[in-house]
Amino acid sequence: MDFKTILQEIVQDSNTFSSIGNVTVTIPELAKVNPNKFGIHLTTISGEDFGIGDSEEKFSIQSISKALTVALAFSFLDEKIWKRVGVEPSGSAFNSLIQLEYEKGIPRNPFINSGAIVIADMLVSCLDNPKDDFLEYIRMISGSPTINYNLAVAQSEKDTRFRNAALANFLKSFGNIENDVDEVLDFYFHQCSIEMSCKELAHSFFFFANEGKSKDGKQILTKSQVKRLNALMQTCGFYDESGEFTYKVGLPGKSGIGGGIVALFPKNFVVATWSPKLNKKGNSELGMHALELLTTKTGMSVF
Amino acid sequence: MDFKTILQEIVQDSNTFSSIGNVTVTIPELAKVNPNKFGIHLTTISGEDFGIGDSEEKFSIQSISKALTVALAFSFLDEKIWKRVGVEPSGSAFNSLIQLEYEKGIPRNPFINSGAIVIADMLVSCLDNPKDDFLEYIRMISGSPTINYNLAVAQSEKDTRFRNAALANFLKSFGNIENDVDEVLDFYFHQCSIEMSCKELAHSFFFFANEGKSKDGKQILTKSQVKRLNALMQTCGFYDESGEFTYKVGLPGKSGIGGGIVALFPKNFVVATWSPKLNKKGNSELGMHALELLTTKTGMSVF
Amino acid sequence: MDFKTILQEIVQDSNTFSSIGNVTVTIPELAKVNPNKFGIHLTTISGEDFGIGDSEEKFSIQSISKALTVALAFSFLDEKIWKRVGVEPSGSAFNSLIQLEYEKGIPRNPFINSGAIVIADMLVSCLDNPKDDFLEYIRMISGSPTINYNLAVAQSEKDTRFRNAALANFLKSFGNIENDVDEVLDFYFHQCSIEMSCKELAHSFFFFANEGKSKDGKQILTKSQVKRLNALMQTCGFYDESGEFTYKVGLPGKSGIGGGIVALFPKNFVVATWSPKLNKKGNSELGMHALELLTTKTGMSVF
Amino acid sequence: MDFKTILQEIVQDSNTFSSIGNVTVTIPELAKVNPNKFGIHLTTISGEDFGIGDSEEKFSIQSISKALTVALAFSFLDEKIWKRVGVEPSGSAFNSLIQLEYEKGIPRNPFINSGAIVIADMLVSCLDNPKDDFLEYIRMISGSPTINYNLAVAQSEKDTRFRNAALANFLKSFGNIENDVDEVLDFYFHQCSIEMSCKELAHSFFFFANEGKSKDGKQILTKSQVKRLNALMQTCGFYDESGEFTYKVGLPGKSGIGGGIVALFPKNFVVATWSPKLNKKGNSELGMHALELLTTKTGMSVF
Repeated sequence: MDFKTILQEIVQDSNTFSSIGNVTVTIPELAKVNPNKFGIHLTTISGEDFGIGDSEEKFSIQSISKALTVALAFSFLDEKIWKRVGVEPSGSAFNSLIQLEYEKGIPRNPFINSGAIVIADMLVSCLDNPKDDFLEYIRMISGSPTINYNLAVAQSEKDTRFRNAALANFLKSFGNIENDVDEVLDFYFHQCSIEMSCKELAHSFFFFANEGKSKDGKQILTKSQVKRLNALMQTCGFYDESGEFTYKVGLPGKSGIGGGIVALFPKNFVVATWSPKLNKKGNSELGMHALELLTTKTGMSVF
Repeated sequence: MDFKTILQEIVQDSNTFSSIGNVTVTIPELAKVNPNKFGIHLTTISGEDFGIGDSEEKFSIQSISKALTVALAFSFLDEKIWKRVGVEPSGSAFNSLIQLEYEKGIPRNPFINSGAIVIADMLVSCLDNPKDDFLEYIRMISGSPTINYNLAVAQSEKDTRFRNAALANFLKSFGNIENDVDEVLDFYFHQCSIEMSCKELAHSFFFFANEGKSKDGKQILTKSQVKRLNALMQTCGFYDESGEFTYKVGLPGKSGIGGGIVALFPKNFVVATWSPKLNKKGNSELGMHALELLTTKTGMSVF
Repeated sequence: MDFKTILQEIVQDSNTFSSIGNVTVTIPELAKVNPNKFGIHLTTISGEDFGIGDSEEKFSIQSISKALTVALAFSFLDEKIWKRVGVEPSGSAFNSLIQLEYEKGIPRNPFINSGAIVIADMLVSCLDNPKDDFLEYIRMISGSPTINYNLAVAQSEKDTRFRNAALANFLKSFGNIENDVDEVLDFYFHQCSIEMSCKELAHSFFFFANEGKSKDGKQILTKSQVKRLNALMQTCGFYDESGEFTYKVGLPGKSGIGGGIVALFPKNFVVATWSPKLNKKGNSELGMHALELLTTKTGMSVF
Repeated sequence: MDFKTILQEIVQDSNTFSSIGNVTVTIPELAKVNPNKFGIHLTTISGEDFGIGDSEEKFSIQSISKALTVALAFSFLDEKIWKRVGVEPSGSAFNSLIQLEYEKGIPRNPFINSGAIVIADMLVSCLDNPKDDFLEYIRMISGSPTINYNLAVAQSEKDTRFRNAALANFLKSFGNIENDVDEVLDFYFHQCSIEMSCKELAHSFFFFANEGKSKDGKQILTKSQVKRLNALMQTCGFYDESGEFTYKVGLPGKSGIGGGIVALFPKNFVVATWSPKLNKKGNSELGMHALELLTTKTGMSVF
């Protein structure tokens, strides 16, 4: 499979793709991004790297970080994390409170905001210095010591925190937050503000495709654990568009409102895309299109 | 009509009424109350007072205060308040977030918590010294200069604030809170902590029954305004049990989880009851029973 | 009170009222009605009649019939009817299935479609010849032997029955329909097709205002029973606009999508209006406006 | 991989598995089944067959038929079917009407009852003799000419049809059913009543695992089409337990309340299990357990 040629074809095709999406406005600091940025990076399981476009420019990974906080919490608590958060698709928007009320404070899955806030609370309990330790973890799994929080973005999220503050307080009212609400939200806003390039993102998620081992050979999770987290990304990784992504692309993945998407074919490759224009569900329009082209052209999907 | 005899009969009957309700536990400071307290006070439009039982002992009026904050906000803003809160029964529990999400941050009515928090926000904007000014207003309409906040109760509400903090942040995320969330909640917790006796409560609500005029003759609201607020109490005053109360008692009224209820027959009388044991909907069991007896025995109801 | 003059003023005022509503299209047969029809009839408790405009022209009473089927079922079953239907406002549209699912087949009240279908099922069980017997009942309470079903309208409702068929089957799946679904719906479509003039409507509802006694002195329900049904109309008579009607008009009443409204001031008068243009909630725009004027001009409301 | 040994181990392990589930009672005819039946059949892509236990005894496939009606509708209408039904997990019970109301009659996916009824309506429109033609299709894809409807089961489903009749009428009220409601339901009840053994089930689904080709080499759907239907089974095949099944088993599949499950590993194998005891979500308890053991022991899952 000649990935280089395929990526070039995808980028060419993207010139004719008329995106009607918009850069997110929910976080003012992110609204400043150039909407025409577009990059793809694919890393094969054997370690080959293929990048094209703006694939080495850093952007805000936002909700993609939720897959990494779950991975870290999973390494501490294993199956115990499912006592406080479910593994089912939500069928609702990422920041809905409705289901949370019906289901008495147990979020449907760790990839909607309420679930991610519960995972953040677990990490605040497990880690000595939550923000420092999590950053160290990200640098370790990615092999990129320069990855960092963007403090202006974290502050911007805090300034517009009200929906997330509602979720966190609601969870606390059901007893599903152990720590101080503000401390948990501070950690959550920082995790969302992490910046990576497509290349760094692909490397960070390498262990999900490689039976738990990072690109430089560290065993981050067990084979069984990454199988389970991949399954979870498949059913829940794209909010209420998870079915659509699975239907069209057929790979487990995770998106963020910064316009990034990471997806992976177990035992084969990891791929990350970045294009800031989002569709109505909050997922990158061009990124989803590019990944659909990728699995169609290569015939490589889990189904 | 011999109200004195009727109140005696009601109290006698209450000895055979086996209440299965419980004192609220949501606010620890209120859980300390003696569950067997029971008082009734009725004031006729001509100014006669009839009290029985623990009718002169102060208790926490809690949500009953919501009718008084609406009255004060109504006097400042008149019909403008309905741009930010509705006049429809909610069909849901008093602290539900579900409808608020579907209806994009406009609470169904000012008597569910979300609606009362919006009204509190209006008062924080309108009043120079919100807490002082509101207390002065209560003392003025009731004619009782000793009415006060219970600071231990207000603190207890703050300590267990998470559901209300979720509501306030959720409202703020929809743009329906103007002031700082913590400042609005601080006012709200104080208004709920006000303590009155049944007698003081009946006097405070005198103007609702007296075409807008207080017991000592001050015009608090216009005749048309109290008509409208009475209508609102009729359809929304008892959370998701408003229909039941209207069906059984047939008077506009308002309840609180401290076990108090105030109800009124326009141009006739105001009556307040207090019994701390609540039914599953959060309304005083014995209080509702007593008021049903009152309208059955007197034949005095608006229907 | 000079009702004749007041009705004339209301009709004059109505010429300047710019209605933006539309005649219902859900039932094709009803869509043929002249949208500019407008009539009012008021009957005082002492038996005086005041009519104006198209007040003696018959129209389809539609959901107003729900108050009359409840009255008849109440006379057979008394409080037992509340085992199968509630007395709370729904907070939802008249034909919603959502609440019914959450509340396991117990409709919120007898005035939303699901509740009325349960009441229809009760009458099918109680009456020997349901359609004949109900018609006889209507003629008896109204004193008008010419009142009849409009079979073309009943057929039109049957032809477009799918939402109501969904409700009836849903109720049956919860065990809250005893009889054959089609038989119950046939009765329900007939009851909705009854035609009356404003005058006949006011006379039919006379006993609600007259402590249970019809215009010609028959005791239709007890004093306590009509008090309770009036309370129910107050909180639930106008679908999810019941709070608004109560707030503005302050009288118990019931509306229908044929454009009719009946309202009453206990021990004082009954009034019926007809104007086919409906607002978004399915209630007659001009009718509500006229009734608001009536209570404002007379100062006569229950609050 | 020695599938024979693995299946034996799974059956042995199942003796120690204490199932707390129950045989379905919703369809009386199905309630008669022996709850202790247990069979597994696995067919590899190369055509090898491995059966154990009651794997050649026929049972009611029920909702598993939904994957086969979608396949047939897909072959007629291709992507056009998604104009009338979605591809997202529902997050709700299989027979819920709530989401259908919010989403105006477009079912979330073809595997919940409402979606399957829409697909049945498509087939009634596309096929000359719907019931005969569908049976012929099933016999063709499975290679088993003896597969048939169980008319007693179909009748039993009709006798207890009310929830499905509510769904079908509700869909019709939104314009998403073209044919007569009763005709569509008749087809639907028949498709659910089909009986197969585990072996026949595995053979019927062979083409899903074999890039669209049946066991005897017919091209039933294109490679891309089966990829998409597999994706859909992965996210939606197990009602509101789809996430759990994906998490634990990691294979696309479909369950039925007759106790059957079919799952497949693309390009590798198809496996069918049968055990009538269902968990609270309506899926076979022992079947899910057996499949989790299978993917754990073999390490063969799509993730």
